[in-house]
Amino acid sequence: MKQLTLGSIAERIGARLVGDADYVVTGLAPLVSASPDHLSFLSNMKYKQQLATTRAGAVILHPDQAHLFSRHRLLLDNPYVGYAKFSQQFAYKPHFNGIDKTARIDSTAVLGLNVNLAAGTVIGPNVRLGDNVTLGPNTIVGSDSIVGGNTNIAANVTLYHNVKVGNNCIIHSSAVIGADGFGFARDGSNWVKIAQLGGVIIGDNVEIGAGTTIDCGALSSTLIGTGVKLDNQIQIGHNVELGDHTAIAGCSAIAGSTKLGKYCTVAGACGIVGHLNIADGVHITAMSRVTNSIAKAGVYSSGTALDKNKNWRRNAARFKQLDQLVKRIKQLETNIFHLGR
Amino acid sequence: MKQLTLGSIAERIGARLVGDADYVVTGLAPLVSASPDHLSFLSNMKYKQQLATTRAGAVILHPDQAHLFSRHRLLLDNPYVGYAKFSQQFAYKPHFNGIDKTARIDSTAVLGLNVNLAAGTVIGPNVRLGDNVTLGPNTIVGSDSIVGGNTNIAANVTLYHNVKVGNNCIIHSSAVIGADGFGFARDGSNWVKIAQLGGVIIGDNVEIGAGTTIDCGALSSTLIGTGVKLDNQIQIGHNVELGDHTAIAGCSAIAGSTKLGKYCTVAGACGIVGHLNIADGVHITAMSRVTNSIAKAGVYSSGTALDKNKNWRRNAARFKQLDQLVKRIKQLETNIFHLGR
Amino acid sequence: MKQLTLGSIAERIGARLVGDADYVVTGLAPLVSASPDHLSFLSNMKYKQQLATTRAGAVILHPDQAHLFSRHRLLLDNPYVGYAKFSQQFAYKPHFNGIDKTARIDSTAVLGLNVNLAAGTVIGPNVRLGDNVTLGPNTIVGSDSIVGGNTNIAANVTLYHNVKVGNNCIIHSSAVIGADGFGFARDGSNWVKIAQLGGVIIGDNVEIGAGTTIDCGALSSTLIGTGVKLDNQIQIGHNVELGDHTAIAGCSAIAGSTKLGKYCTVAGACGIVGHLNIADGVHITAMSRVTNSIAKAGVYSSGTALDKNKNWRRNAARFKQLDQLVKRIKQLETNIFHLGR
Repeated sequence: MKQLTLGSIAERIGARLVGDADYVVTGLAPLVSASPDHLSFLSNMKYKQQLATTRAGAVILHPDQAHLFSRHRLLLDNPYVGYAKFSQQFAYKPHFNGIDKTARIDSTAVLGLNVNLAAGTVIGPNVRLGDNVTLGPNTIVGSDSIVGGNTNIAANVTLYHNVKVGNNCIIHSSAVIGADGFGFARDGSNWVKIAQLGGVIIGDNVEIGAGTTIDCGALSSTLIGTGVKLDNQIQIGHNVELGDHTAIAGCSAIAGSTKLGKYCTVAGACGIVGHLNIADGVHITAMSRVTNSIAKAGVYSSGTALDKNKNWRRNAARFKQLDQLVKRIKQLETNIFHLGR
Repeated sequence: MKQLTLGSIAERIGARLVGDADYVVTGLAPLVSASPDHLSFLSNMKYKQQLATTRAGAVILHPDQAHLFSRHRLLLDNPYVGYAKFSQQFAYKPHFNGIDKTARIDSTAVLGLNVNLAAGTVIGPNVRLGDNVTLGPNTIVGSDSIVGGNTNIAANVTLYHNVKVGNNCIIHSSAVIGADGFGFARDGSNWVKIAQLGGVIIGDNVEIGAGTTIDCGALSSTLIGTGVKLDNQIQIGHNVELGDHTAIAGCSAIAGSTKLGKYCTVAGACGIVGHLNIADGVHITAMSRVTNSIAKAGVYSSGTALDKNKNWRRNAARFKQLDQLVKRIKQLETNIFHLGR
Repeated sequence: MKQLTLGSIAERIGARLVGDADYVVTGLAPLVSASPDHLSFLSNMKYKQQLATTRAGAVILHPDQAHLFSRHRLLLDNPYVGYAKFSQQFAYKPHFNGIDKTARIDSTAVLGLNVNLAAGTVIGPNVRLGDNVTLGPNTIVGSDSIVGGNTNIAANVTLYHNVKVGNNCIIHSSAVIGADGFGFARDGSNWVKIAQLGGVIIGDNVEIGAGTTIDCGALSSTLIGTGVKLDNQIQIGHNVELGDHTAIAGCSAIAGSTKLGKYCTVAGACGIVGHLNIADGVHITAMSRVTNSIAKAGVYSSGTALDKNKNWRRNAARFKQLDQLVKRIKQLETNIFHLGR
């Protein structure tokens, strides 16, 4: 069990401590379930009233709320960031130790210091793994691929050949990086495969969720910027470019050659078609479809809102008449204009 | 080849036999392709007329249809359930026998009786596997995870650490249980990772489809109720709670902290955003988006219906003018009111 | 480095060479980045003006554009097909050589000539692998499955039992073929599993993307026609039938028992519900939902177009009033009719 003093925590998360620097906490919990040996936090104001009743020994909060809690306080302008940084103290560390005897490493591969290769990992020709890289069980790194230092790849991940992963990245299970982009030329009644000759280049501090697939480029490489965060089951087509610090939620798909700017967010289950340019700072709401380039930062949406099926059926039928309805409105306007004269 | 008498089948599926208890069938087939050594069934009334021509030796049907078939009949109020129960007689049994010599089992793991571990399986520290558990080839069970008795996990599945799977569950290939939830705090231009410290708790009799991902909780655990059925490529975010016997079809996604009640059904490719409460007995139709909590049982939908692209383009353009159209209608109503006075 | 003469290339791709048959190229690049030792191509007319400035040594183009480029030309009616065929000269060849010592092959399996089985592959009972089959690391082939000649299966793929893959196929990582279809009968408050007893039959020249899942049939088999191309993360339900040469883009889902014709295209992230019949030559645009059978070739769509969130919110609210709006328009028409008399 971890024993952390409030003094050391304040220093680590950059907070101002109001209370006892030697007070010890052993864990992290929400206000509603915290006990005196827990540090808790208030970032969402809708939980403000829980400060009155929480049993937490100490709380991270904004200076403006400091008066609402009487025990130990860690004051921070962004308490949510404080919570994030503190949470990392309790992060799970994988149990792999060194190189398992069942790991299969090509003789031409170059491994850094302190590399952990779990059981069943397979490292191809000319692979380079940086220092402190960890690969979970049965993970594959294809030939000529590079994994940067401190990167942690979970179990059952596949990196194809010619994939470059940066430093301090995290890749979750069943992710596939570098499979062929979907490219075919129609030759009469047959599809002729276009060989996918590019690679994938992934920046530093990138996280890639479980089951996410990032295809290799057709001629040049697919590019994932620094600090990009990808949730589970995302599909990134060939030659997509994602700007730095862009974050995409689960099950969204981005088709080939589309470029997203920096600091974009794409909510879950969105679809963005190919060959578009999306500016920096664009935010797409959940399950929207993007079929045109977006030149200006802002929030964008498509779709219709949920309704009772009975109502929805009627309205969806009317949607198919919309253009005709507009004509009827125009006719009414003309008729009224004549009547009114 | 199995040889089953109608008497034994009637007993197993709880049907009333009208016919010869010693008649032997060796398989199961639809009415249209069945032969005299097959048992068939009628559950969908649109196939009723096939009773007149089927060559099936025996048929499971509702008593109301008994007069439509003259050979051996197994009468049951719910013939579809009878078919389901009978089909299990022919279910595929995996060919793994005991513990393969290439399985890697941590010395602290505890295995029940009659455990089958196929080639390349990896069992982490402090894992507990119940009796009659089967793990397919190259499946991973992370540290401190528990798999209940009679649970069958297919090939290439990943269970992270701190995942609890109940009894009599089925998990299909490439599923990932317990990967990190998608949690980051924005700190200026960077995303700070929120360590995901909770686990996943899965009840008994749960089935999880191929490629489905269920994230671990942030502080407390993600919860999957008893008897839940999840199809392929579903994404379940951190701290989601699924009520007992809820069923979700392929490619649907449920974002973090949303709670679904019991006996819900979610059709394929739906998206449910985070932090919602969905009541018991809610049914969501295919490809709908849910952005608000639902307090009342019923059927809900969103989206528009398919149309010829040429028509659809016109109507979709009009959708963007809807609010203005309403204003034009209001203006017309005002004008007419004045004209009519 | 490859050294290819224009003469040999012209022969291989079926082009008419205008230039030096002995001129040597070593690679393939877009017009904008090609150098004199590259062959490039023009297929999209929007890049036509790049012919004036490209440094490419030779270009594949349509005879109508031949006058726009003065160096070596390979003339072809479909330059994109020429590019595709030429690109295959540079395709990556996997580095597996023969049968790795860690491959686990059941004694009843039958292997063709020149089979490559990478580390950690597992081949079940009664499996048959054709000549020149390649399986990537940690890939599983379940019992009674068949893989045709020259088929290339990447790492971490799972083929369940009773799956038949044709000749010259490509299957990408984390794909799962033959997992149980999603079939349950409701028995009071419980779901009773319907055993999925059919297989999967995949034709020749099929490509299956990373993370794509194809379920086995319930009684008969799921059928994937010759020349079908499936992108990543597609879900194909039990007993679906895909006609020859149909192509489906990433993240689309097709529910159980639906039949698609030949030469269809389904764009990304579409959903097609179960038990439908879709004619030959149907094209579905991105993120559309199909809930009815389609009897006629053509292009079909659903959904609404992207808009600024602020505008979209207003219009989406109006969508829920559409049926009422139509009633108001009708009332206006009646009133005007009476006023006008």
